[in-house]
Amino acid sequence: MALRLIIDMDGVIADIYAQYARFEASESGIKRSCEDLKGKSESEVFRNLREYLFTRGFFRDAPVIPGSIPALKELNAQYDLFVVSSATEFPQSLQEKYDWLQEHFPFLSWKQMVFCGSKAIIHGDIMIDDHFKNLDSFSGRTILFTQPHNDGLPEKNHVRVHSWQEVLDLLV
Amino acid sequence: MALRLIIDMDGVIADIYAQYARFEASESGIKRSCEDLKGKSESEVFRNLREYLFTRGFFRDAPVIPGSIPALKELNAQYDLFVVSSATEFPQSLQEKYDWLQEHFPFLSWKQMVFCGSKAIIHGDIMIDDHFKNLDSFSGRTILFTQPHNDGLPEKNHVRVHSWQEVLDLLV
Repeated sequence: MALRLIIDMDGVIADIYAQYARFEASESGIKRSCEDLKGKSESEVFRNLREYLFTRGFFRDAPVIPGSIPALKELNAQYDLFVVSSATEFPQSLQEKYDWLQEHFPFLSWKQMVFCGSKAIIHGDIMIDDHFKNLDSFSGRTILFTQPHNDGLPEKNHVRVHSWQEVLDLLV
Repeated sequence: MALRLIIDMDGVIADIYAQYARFEASESGIKRSCEDLKGKSESEVFRNLREYLFTRGFFRDAPVIPGSIPALKELNAQYDLFVVSSATEFPQSLQEKYDWLQEHFPFLSWKQMVFCGSKAIIHGDIMIDDHFKNLDSFSGRTILFTQPHNDGLPEKNHVRVHSWQEVLDLLV
């Protein structure tokens, strides 16, 4: 039986940082450099973050993280793949995240989508996520996807990757 | 640590059969008796079922299964409780199910909600569900909530309950 692979959405296949930066720039004209973001939590850097997260279109229009579409296509052929996304905190995101997946990852079925609050309830063999809180409570193999907020922080017992190519190098 | 209790939505806290019957009656005038429904799958009985499931308001206006509100309130104080619902097949249901839970079960937080396609990915200690497909693949203790489609069928290795009072008698 294929191993079950759990893939996060925001910060792993959806470029939520690009959205934060875009929303902030259009609101205040601020332009962030990578150095501004490194190792700091999202809410520390983007002051109106919670407002953006509740704005219609925020999740729907997020850019796709480079390389994630061909990578998921490949992994989907080999693994029992699920996209598991924290969404219930921002209820307007539920439909937007579904529509976004339909648009960019049409090869995934509704059976492979999970929208939740806490990921502690999720069971699988491998998890790819950018947040320690999700990886730390997972019982299987854990892969930390580099995003500005975790950049430079110790990986703990997780394997860090910087790109989807690195994920493929590990898993295919 | 509290045991993790996984509770299904449709047919366990949301009276989806009442909705099927209501939609069918308003469409065709057919009135179902309990005998028409017993031991038959929903799609066998309600011919336009899939159309209803995709209709806006179908999930939002579902009645609450009697006794479920006080029961969940009580169980929520004692267990690590999650409501896990198959929803991604009918994407319009995502926001409706969230709103329904907010209205009828306001004591549950967004952290306790999971909207998915397959429940095979869900890990917990106890599951209450009306469908064998969900209970059969669950590794913990399983409770079959009686609904017309499972009525009279063998319980297999699950414990059958007919009401929320019976759930409380088992778990509190």
